Amino acid sequence: MSAPSSPSPHLPGQVMAAEMAEQPAVLRRVLDEGAAAIREVAERIAARNPRFVLLTARGTSDNAALYAKYLLEIQLGKPCGLTSMSTTTAYGAQPDLTDCLVITISQSGGSPDLVASTEAARAAGAITLAVTNNADSPLAAVSEFHIDVLAGAEKALPATKTYTAELLALYLFVAGLRGGAGAEAAEAAKALPELAESVLARRGEVRELAARYRFAERMVLTSRGYGYPTAKEAALKLMETSYIPALSYSGADLLHGPLAMVDNVSPVIAVVTEGKGGEALQPVLDRLRDRGADLVVIGEQSEVDRASAGFALPTAGLPEELQPIVEILPLQMLAYEVTIARGQDPDAPRSLAKVTETR
Amino acid sequence: MSAPSSPSPHLPGQVMAAEMAEQPAVLRRVLDEGAAAIREVAERIAARNPRFVLLTARGTSDNAALYAKYLLEIQLGKPCGLTSMSTTTAYGAQPDLTDCLVITISQSGGSPDLVASTEAARAAGAITLAVTNNADSPLAAVSEFHIDVLAGAEKALPATKTYTAELLALYLFVAGLRGGAGAEAAEAAKALPELAESVLARRGEVRELAARYRFAERMVLTSRGYGYPTAKEAALKLMETSYIPALSYSGADLLHGPLAMVDNVSPVIAVVTEGKGGEALQPVLDRLRDRGADLVVIGEQSEVDRASAGFALPTAGLPEELQPIVEILPLQMLAYEVTIARGQDPDAPRSLAKVTETR
Repeated sequence: MSAPSSPSPHLPGQVMAAEMAEQPAVLRRVLDEGAAAIREVAERIAARNPRFVLLTARGTSDNAALYAKYLLEIQLGKPCGLTSMSTTTAYGAQPDLTDCLVITISQSGGSPDLVASTEAARAAGAITLAVTNNADSPLAAVSEFHIDVLAGAEKALPATKTYTAELLALYLFVAGLRGGAGAEAAEAAKALPELAESVLARRGEVRELAARYRFAERMVLTSRGYGYPTAKEAALKLMETSYIPALSYSGADLLHGPLAMVDNVSPVIAVVTEGKGGEALQPVLDRLRDRGADLVVIGEQSEVDRASAGFALPTAGLPEELQPIVEILPLQMLAYEVTIARGQDPDAPRSLAKVTETR
Repeated sequence: MSAPSSPSPHLPGQVMAAEMAEQPAVLRRVLDEGAAAIREVAERIAARNPRFVLLTARGTSDNAALYAKYLLEIQLGKPCGLTSMSTTTAYGAQPDLTDCLVITISQSGGSPDLVASTEAARAAGAITLAVTNNADSPLAAVSEFHIDVLAGAEKALPATKTYTAELLALYLFVAGLRGGAGAEAAEAAKALPELAESVLARRGEVRELAARYRFAERMVLTSRGYGYPTAKEAALKLMETSYIPALSYSGADLLHGPLAMVDNVSPVIAVVTEGKGGEALQPVLDRLRDRGADLVVIGEQSEVDRASAGFALPTAGLPEELQPIVEILPLQMLAYEVTIARGQDPDAPRSLAKVTETR
């Protein structure tokens, strides 16, 4: 913690690059040091048998919340909603939250509106769970339960390691809610650190993609099912580092209007999760190929081969619901490399503060 | 209904223009001919006392669903969620929906995935309500309850009159759920047709805005609270007619990342609803003005005066929750005028079909 005697100059993106590279170690830490505590929280909440779940978050954590929503609906059959925070903080809505689990996800745990809405939820009878990267945060303090995602301090403004750590923590939490049925699911997650390492080692391939898309005026991202949060998070990452307008749509929504905006100068990045999400995306991929869109696929090799470009994921055998933790990695790297190629600094996008004090 | 002897050539945008112009008459029809049936449906559903509400829709109707979510949470204190349809249609999730009201909103009532997910919800114990513009649609048939939004056939691909009709029908429905407390609210809606007429008559002002923004490479839309669905719907309208990438964010989310993308060549359209939503947006407006953003305000005159440009809404005295039905109108007109100015046809965006058959 002592200051270096002669501080070295800041290289653009060095903080984000270091934090991306930490992800295999962070995932291993969540599995080795965090899983038992997460399982205990899950067991205590399962005993309360919540009828439905509300998820509250902003920015990157909101994409982790959407991932959790898919898990909770598909694997547990719990109806879920994502909170519109202003209903509580601006309008003073007082819903009856008996039987409701309210999960608030925040890297810093410091945003005042998240703290206020969690306090309001608890007062309204909800079971409250905070998922944060800071066990000493105000959000952790006001919540009945807390899960620490153990990612270590995150200093780059674009969140990377806290996102994958949040996904894994939420995955293990939902596995824990499922009790015995979730034990095998938790076991499958042990493949993640090595898979993440193998993806992060392929920087050359991502640089080639970045060279191809660095001049894009805009990008469209699409997916379905478990991959949809990945598409949203990749769009956010691209925008907040490179400032390229990146629009994300579920494959079904893309056909409902925004497809008019896709043409042969607007690349489409499709996250093709291996499984039911990828299957449901096939008609959208066909439609995009028919119109001659420049289609970039993040998915298995056979899908990449049918696209204009892509990044083949080594996810064979990994359950579909774990793939988002791997498939975001080349997209984080793409945001980073495109930004470097454009001569900008991914560590410090214009006008952003790490803890956003929205109220 | 007879064919004209010599068919006149299609003028770009003539269908969309005619349907936008019908909106005052459609709103009047919903108030005069639809309100009683909506109240009856609301009373029957209120008697079943749903604990929470799930809303299912796509495209424009999804923005109407978000509007309903604010109403239900703020005015009724019912926890709400927007459905991720693929959890049912692709993954076969089987949530327990006892005590749950599932509202499915669709102009055509014909999209197979909406029909399938509504059938699944009904089988899972939900109270199902379809809100459509077609009482003879498959969606209306599979739902326990149906509300007809009475907009008349909509032929232009960009939905306009069905959106405002959906908003008003949903407003009256929630007023009905509130029983006696909602009677005054329903009364306030009677001001809408005249307000809509007065806004639609100001085409010259919108043309000036269109001249100012027709060359924009991208646009950012923002709002908070009840105005947020308006920002999302305006972005969709701009994209599907003009193909200008238009990104919408709640004011709080905008500060969490995408603000890096706003600079002095990217106009920001802010929907400043008069009331708590507009108040909550003030810090975001201050931040945008500080960075010298080109800020376009849709809101009351005093807010427009502090912006780079705008359109002053005659909403004084109108309850905040009714303002979205007025504030979308200049934005529909802007999408239309920008598209005409760019030499494109708003009636027929590339590659869109009116009924999207997603599964």
